[in-house]
Amino acid sequence: MLIKPLRGVVPPMVTPLKDNETLDIGGLERLVEHILSGHVHGLFLLGTTGEAPNLSYPMRHEVVKRVCKQVRGRVPVLVGITDTVLIESLDLAQTAYAAGAAAVVAAPPYYFAPGQPELVEYYNRLADRLPLPLFLYNMPSHTKVMIDPETAYKLSENENIVGLKDSSANIVYFNKVRHLLRARPDFALLIGPEEALGNVVLMGAHGGVSGGANLFPQLFVDLYDAAVAGDVAKVCKLQERVMTISAALYGVGQHMSSFIKGVKCSLALMGICSDFMVEPFNHFRKEERELIRRRLIELGVETVDSGQSTVDS
Amino acid sequence: MLIKPLRGVVPPMVTPLKDNETLDIGGLERLVEHILSGHVHGLFLLGTTGEAPNLSYPMRHEVVKRVCKQVRGRVPVLVGITDTVLIESLDLAQTAYAAGAAAVVAAPPYYFAPGQPELVEYYNRLADRLPLPLFLYNMPSHTKVMIDPETAYKLSENENIVGLKDSSANIVYFNKVRHLLRARPDFALLIGPEEALGNVVLMGAHGGVSGGANLFPQLFVDLYDAAVAGDVAKVCKLQERVMTISAALYGVGQHMSSFIKGVKCSLALMGICSDFMVEPFNHFRKEERELIRRRLIELGVETVDSGQSTVDS
Amino acid sequence: MLIKPLRGVVPPMVTPLKDNETLDIGGLERLVEHILSGHVHGLFLLGTTGEAPNLSYPMRHEVVKRVCKQVRGRVPVLVGITDTVLIESLDLAQTAYAAGAAAVVAAPPYYFAPGQPELVEYYNRLADRLPLPLFLYNMPSHTKVMIDPETAYKLSENENIVGLKDSSANIVYFNKVRHLLRARPDFALLIGPEEALGNVVLMGAHGGVSGGANLFPQLFVDLYDAAVAGDVAKVCKLQERVMTISAALYGVGQHMSSFIKGVKCSLALMGICSDFMVEPFNHFRKEERELIRRRLIELGVETVDSGQSTVDS
Amino acid sequence: MLIKPLRGVVPPMVTPLKDNETLDIGGLERLVEHILSGHVHGLFLLGTTGEAPNLSYPMRHEVVKRVCKQVRGRVPVLVGITDTVLIESLDLAQTAYAAGAAAVVAAPPYYFAPGQPELVEYYNRLADRLPLPLFLYNMPSHTKVMIDPETAYKLSENENIVGLKDSSANIVYFNKVRHLLRARPDFALLIGPEEALGNVVLMGAHGGVSGGANLFPQLFVDLYDAAVAGDVAKVCKLQERVMTISAALYGVGQHMSSFIKGVKCSLALMGICSDFMVEPFNHFRKEERELIRRRLIELGVETVDSGQSTVDS
Repeated sequence: MLIKPLRGVVPPMVTPLKDNETLDIGGLERLVEHILSGHVHGLFLLGTTGEAPNLSYPMRHEVVKRVCKQVRGRVPVLVGITDTVLIESLDLAQTAYAAGAAAVVAAPPYYFAPGQPELVEYYNRLADRLPLPLFLYNMPSHTKVMIDPETAYKLSENENIVGLKDSSANIVYFNKVRHLLRARPDFALLIGPEEALGNVVLMGAHGGVSGGANLFPQLFVDLYDAAVAGDVAKVCKLQERVMTISAALYGVGQHMSSFIKGVKCSLALMGICSDFMVEPFNHFRKEERELIRRRLIELGVETVDSGQSTVDS
Repeated sequence: MLIKPLRGVVPPMVTPLKDNETLDIGGLERLVEHILSGHVHGLFLLGTTGEAPNLSYPMRHEVVKRVCKQVRGRVPVLVGITDTVLIESLDLAQTAYAAGAAAVVAAPPYYFAPGQPELVEYYNRLADRLPLPLFLYNMPSHTKVMIDPETAYKLSENENIVGLKDSSANIVYFNKVRHLLRARPDFALLIGPEEALGNVVLMGAHGGVSGGANLFPQLFVDLYDAAVAGDVAKVCKLQERVMTISAALYGVGQHMSSFIKGVKCSLALMGICSDFMVEPFNHFRKEERELIRRRLIELGVETVDSGQSTVDS
Repeated sequence: MLIKPLRGVVPPMVTPLKDNETLDIGGLERLVEHILSGHVHGLFLLGTTGEAPNLSYPMRHEVVKRVCKQVRGRVPVLVGITDTVLIESLDLAQTAYAAGAAAVVAAPPYYFAPGQPELVEYYNRLADRLPLPLFLYNMPSHTKVMIDPETAYKLSENENIVGLKDSSANIVYFNKVRHLLRARPDFALLIGPEEALGNVVLMGAHGGVSGGANLFPQLFVDLYDAAVAGDVAKVCKLQERVMTISAALYGVGQHMSSFIKGVKCSLALMGICSDFMVEPFNHFRKEERELIRRRLIELGVETVDSGQSTVDS
Repeated sequence: MLIKPLRGVVPPMVTPLKDNETLDIGGLERLVEHILSGHVHGLFLLGTTGEAPNLSYPMRHEVVKRVCKQVRGRVPVLVGITDTVLIESLDLAQTAYAAGAAAVVAAPPYYFAPGQPELVEYYNRLADRLPLPLFLYNMPSHTKVMIDPETAYKLSENENIVGLKDSSANIVYFNKVRHLLRARPDFALLIGPEEALGNVVLMGAHGGVSGGANLFPQLFVDLYDAAVAGDVAKVCKLQERVMTISAALYGVGQHMSSFIKGVKCSLALMGICSDFMVEPFNHFRKEERELIRRRLIELGVETVDSGQSTVDS
């Protein structure tokens, strides 16, 4: 089902919402098709960008079932199961398996910061009970702990652990993991921040989990393809476009949530889905929304003429 | 129901477990009576010490129902509802209310670190929907964010927010909150780390959420009483005893979980309840267990002659 | 010369300056007498509050010589020798010794963060070469490293290491050091942040290095005396006054330097010395200055009618 | 003198020492020639790798004079002037200028962490008083502060500020600075960690300040040349060699100082210079030294048969 190692652009999908307890179904369907139309290599549900830790459990399961059904195997679907409650992770993995997902993804439990030996035990025990292959997810800004290169190396010996997504932005860390795991060609190493996609894929990393691919999926696929082809000039040009988008859309507002707010607001203005965010976050209000609109226009993106703060489905 | 401000020693109860999905019912009952026998002023369920973020939801609800029923109003029961999923916090609060708990306690959502304005919105919206009064819980080592003194001050204007538990160990922070809130005599300010209980109650803080009171409840009540009475010499003597216990029992092993492991292991050796810890943590193995045993004996505590790693109920 | 353990209020003196390379001699003399008039128990030159790491070496030596000469043994003078260059620390200690200072104070070298074993070696080797007794200075916000309680304990075995000043604001840390060192009655434990002076001296700490004592030395001495006498009510009242001053004067502006800027600006407005700060810092400009003035007036402090940004000497 | 932008490999030279107060003159001369023999594009004296903050001032001046004299303009020499004392930075810059250095390099003052507006003021005032062009040096692990991309952008408007060396290892940061400064083609952007040299030069960064080039200068020059030529396969191969060296030599021991200790120990074993480290650090003792020796041999490097812990000059 999952071809190892996983390669390419695997967008971490935002979760379109009508309110705290209701999915924006129409928006969700449009978003999935919008992303797939960019020829991405996979789809990652319920990650950080998907606001997963803030979503109710029934909603998480619903997202998995709906999207897997809609995707119908066109690309592998990865499902985030990060949780502090082990049984909830396992339940969600079961749903993912039943729905036809290809793999699951888990960051370390994020209230108590585990030590490295605790991480090794945790991930091994988790992997041994999962019905699907597992990707590690290094996300120290949110979990307070790095998955040390040596820890990743030990865990790569577990057959059911098939890759690592690194969102640390630490390039030395990323290259150390790659170097340590050079003898494990089936183990996928994916980078989180899209601002570094070109830098690492050019030199052999397997791909990226690029949030901006919610908005511009083809751009990231083109960037990935150019990098795999070793077309440095094209990589530079496309990465520059990514940097322009990042500077325009992700830094409005402040706090850890700015990136997600910017992506959701842009999607709403592009007529794709609602920008509602689950509590405790708020979508952008009018002022930030208009700023995002102006910047989208500068980027050459058509926006819908909606005065509403969210898009109807 | 809740006399404001809440004063005294409110132990954050550990959660006795048989395995990941089963409460140690006998141990739980013995533990509640053991703690109440020390004349404590309240009982705090499902806090950090209670491993709450790692417990399954059904188990959290069961703990609340069982303990409230057993306590029968002898002391006010506080229930931790900290969660990244708002609806789970509200559900648990509903159970707490129905079971007769006196208040709920919430740390900031702990995956995305909110900014201060986001915290104000979050807590106000939460408090407005709760059936019980709310205590704020400052726990930056786990949530990555401080509840700024000014934020606490703003939130104290919400009638349903009745206090703050501070586990930052930052005495300047604690005193700044006290100073800012000096005109709100009904707002309770409780300290987390027992190693500082005497220092702050002597000077007017309302009490402490002392984990060691799972083991030695009367000691902490005596310390609190001495501090309220302004008996400095006695406070120093009893605080010294607390420091001796802390040095002996809480620093075995490493990682954030050492404190809970030490308390649970000691309780098992005292014959009160099992020391099982919910995944991803492990209870102490034999070597650490024997070290804890030796230290309990040095402290003059009788231990049971169990060769098992947990206590039968 | 130095009575062990050192007890009481030891103000960390600001360094009055005319410009980057010139002391404000008149201001310095007035400031020393102003502080001594409050019956303080010592004087600490060239600490963080004294902007020592930013002062030129000739100026540091000049401050030591001038102040020691002026103090003439009325109180013990402590001299900060914290530096990344060992030989500069030793040189300054030699000047301190020759000038009649009682002790020196050193935080860990602050560019490379040393590990704990490196700290033990560093401090032992330093102490063995110093002509004066040494105080450790725990200042993790600036040096990036805590002097662990066990490290302090090991170092206390060196006869020439006679105390520790803790500016971490971590009360659990402070109490752990006290507990570990309970068998070393000659080892002084002083607290940095004045906002916690009452809390720790009431329970036996030896004193405080209170920056606000530059402004109101008698207040801190009264607070210390009340704490030593176990007069809890008086301690609370005076500590409340300290909190009021802290809230009024130390939080204007932002950045790590706000405290020093607030103290220097207040001293200038009280007619005692210039508020010039050595590069890379700037004293407060007009707006902040007028805010400080209003707050001093609210505190009942007379201010001079100077339109200048600094005071002439 | 300095061709803008500076491009290529600019090794941060270690400082060969006989003891705390004496340079290893023979070793210094051999080291300079060893590095230059690798066709590097510049030489950076008195950086972090050079232990500059721990060296006495006379020694810093001596290093600058000796090396500039020996280099005789064969490559541009950059001189680190980072200091908490402004006048010492200026003095050293004057010596650098007189000796014929091409530029100076300064990290933020590192005791008090400045805010961003303070950084802008500091660097502008510094640059305006320097006799040589200035490189910014982003080193948050040691200085506690990032030079924000916007700050770098503002500072790039100062004609005398000609580049930035980034040692944060944060690739998103690095690419953001590059993007913001894309309209300033004369402003050099160099990366610190050699483990990422290929990733950034391939995509247009100007070069690297690679510590390992003390040992293997030609390797880094070859890597740089391959990256400039867009020869991705060769970049990957050479970067892999760098990763192998990094894994073998830089992680022996622990603490921030391990990298420097590993480089110095290797240089001693290669017969180039002494491995003495200035206090508060120690060179590796026998056990680590033999480990480094074995690893050098595995790397195919010949080692000298010295039983001494340092090399005679």
